[in-house]
Amino acid sequence: MKKNYLLTPGPTPLPPEICESLSRPIIHHRTPQFQAILKEAEEGLKAVFQTKNDVFMLASSGTGAMEAAVVNLLSWGDKALVIEGGKFGERWTELCEAYGIKPIVLKVEWGKGLDPAVLKEYLNKEHAIKAVFSTLCETSTGVTFDIKALAQVVRETEAVLVVDAISGLGAVDLAMDDWGVDVVVCGSQKGLMLPPGLGFISASKKAWKLVEESKCPKYYFDLKSAKKAIDKTDTPFTPAIGLIIALNEALKIMRSEGLDAIFKRHKKLAEATRSAMLALKLELFAPDAASDAVTAAKVPQGIDGEKLVKAMRDEYGVTIAGGQGEMKGKLFRIAHMGYISEFDIILGISCLEKVFKKMGYDFELGSGVKAAQEVLLK
Amino acid sequence: MKKNYLLTPGPTPLPPEICESLSRPIIHHRTPQFQAILKEAEEGLKAVFQTKNDVFMLASSGTGAMEAAVVNLLSWGDKALVIEGGKFGERWTELCEAYGIKPIVLKVEWGKGLDPAVLKEYLNKEHAIKAVFSTLCETSTGVTFDIKALAQVVRETEAVLVVDAISGLGAVDLAMDDWGVDVVVCGSQKGLMLPPGLGFISASKKAWKLVEESKCPKYYFDLKSAKKAIDKTDTPFTPAIGLIIALNEALKIMRSEGLDAIFKRHKKLAEATRSAMLALKLELFAPDAASDAVTAAKVPQGIDGEKLVKAMRDEYGVTIAGGQGEMKGKLFRIAHMGYISEFDIILGISCLEKVFKKMGYDFELGSGVKAAQEVLLK
Repeated sequence: MKKNYLLTPGPTPLPPEICESLSRPIIHHRTPQFQAILKEAEEGLKAVFQTKNDVFMLASSGTGAMEAAVVNLLSWGDKALVIEGGKFGERWTELCEAYGIKPIVLKVEWGKGLDPAVLKEYLNKEHAIKAVFSTLCETSTGVTFDIKALAQVVRETEAVLVVDAISGLGAVDLAMDDWGVDVVVCGSQKGLMLPPGLGFISASKKAWKLVEESKCPKYYFDLKSAKKAIDKTDTPFTPAIGLIIALNEALKIMRSEGLDAIFKRHKKLAEATRSAMLALKLELFAPDAASDAVTAAKVPQGIDGEKLVKAMRDEYGVTIAGGQGEMKGKLFRIAHMGYISEFDIILGISCLEKVFKKMGYDFELGSGVKAAQEVLLK
Repeated sequence: MKKNYLLTPGPTPLPPEICESLSRPIIHHRTPQFQAILKEAEEGLKAVFQTKNDVFMLASSGTGAMEAAVVNLLSWGDKALVIEGGKFGERWTELCEAYGIKPIVLKVEWGKGLDPAVLKEYLNKEHAIKAVFSTLCETSTGVTFDIKALAQVVRETEAVLVVDAISGLGAVDLAMDDWGVDVVVCGSQKGLMLPPGLGFISASKKAWKLVEESKCPKYYFDLKSAKKAIDKTDTPFTPAIGLIIALNEALKIMRSEGLDAIFKRHKKLAEATRSAMLALKLELFAPDAASDAVTAAKVPQGIDGEKLVKAMRDEYGVTIAGGQGEMKGKLFRIAHMGYISEFDIILGISCLEKVFKKMGYDFELGSGVKAAQEVLLK
């Protein structure tokens, strides 16, 4: 018998209510029945985005929603600043380049956060920057950026702040309206506990002015079409009906737990995981800007990181993530995002310990689990 | 009690095996487990597309795959010919315009097919046309275009033939390689019996030369990235994991029925439906080019077409489709595409008869059902 457990930063496990809703007979999207579902989903998303702005639902993965941000805000030749501290920051740069937008790259060392003063300096130095692209949780490094502080800097300029919150929204706090974040982009398969296949995007009034002016060519991701449709509780193209029905189940679960309780749970699970890593004499990859959605730790010397992940998954059914991009083989990442309880963390650490022992890594068996338990008992 | 039946041209009903597969726990996409699924899906899709070319799976609706065709084949300023005989033909024109491509529109009267000689004339007259955009089943009118004959014309020119087969693939014949069709685009929620959220696209060698030259800006729908990924049994961005797992179930069902048997079943269901419409003294909208995927009939005089569709759906649970675009209120459409048996058609016609009677339309009760039964008995 092999039982499977998923501790990856997307997809994250599906609650049974969501599995059940995905198995229901499909309904047609141009019906009052589906309109009611769409309306409920939009209201629920606004609560999770902490915004009064429309939240558009796209039939795409999160990258599609990122593309929607770029092509709807900017035009060929525009300048944008990209805060690039990992693989997903790099995606903004690639997207800008694909559409003829000049990305000024603010490189942040992988595993580090960004001092708002540095951003301020860049924005003072560079003129005519129309948009600042950033990331909430940089899944590739386990960093959560201080979006609240960065937004304070950007809101004093002409630029809009765009946050890739694909990883993190619904797991860590992001108060779009209160913090003055202009555009938030999200995907379904992380904090929202759904399968991948839905992208979300919301834009402030300040951002919407850019949408009106943007000359980037677009059709599928055109937010002006999406706006016309949403005003009639519709979508411009066939929506991902099944996923939107499941989204309402996810939003129901989130409403009943409450956003504050959700953020607290993620914080506690993250603390427990970090504490376990330290007890196992591992080095955290992002000690000063650690994300509450995913923990990245360095693979100890003498241990093959890819083999570690493979053994946990293929021999014991526990799927965690390895390193991405330049950190391939050097990192492993345990996600504690979405439908994850304290005991999921315990079992994940226990499996990690077992495989470490088998691979010859020297530490006291049980020390990681115990350290996590101590945090979780508090 | 109200029991629901779906007879719309997308989404189409889900077989129970597909519902079940959608409810399974999610797995991670960067694993050998998912790679095996992806490989099986791609092989199965090739059989349905009747091609040896790669078939790319996009996390998008069908329109996303149409956009992928436009932005990967062409560049700003290029000329394309659009065969426009309904709402979905118009979508090609809109897509071309969005990307600065000059669409030369070959208008086909709604409800009619296209004589290949007319296409030939256009292609002789207009020079430097790089792509001809067409539609397999024009869902808005119930027409199936004679793609085989159109392909014979286009293959003698420099242009590539692109077919929107979103509606129709897996229901009516489209032999991509044999007929010399260059690009086929599809979606998941029609003949493939899945929920919406997957787009598919396949391109011939002739088309791939255009892909290499294309200068349209693109990122999410970039087929060169998709090609690099597929060669490693991967996707460039997070795939719609759950839908791809369900796709394998759909492909399994299709394999066991066999493509020829599937096409025959659709043909028979369509003949039965058309025969019923005539018995009910209704006029078919596309008598000379009627699709085997969906039947469109004119709403009889004195009857409100929108009320008809609404009453069938809201009072009796049978969802058919009304008219779209310029035919809104004037048409109704009964789909017989995907997971539809002969008795689904019978119940749909029976419900239509009941509502017609209640609305005061004069005909002999049972005549439509009987006409369908006669065809189905053969």
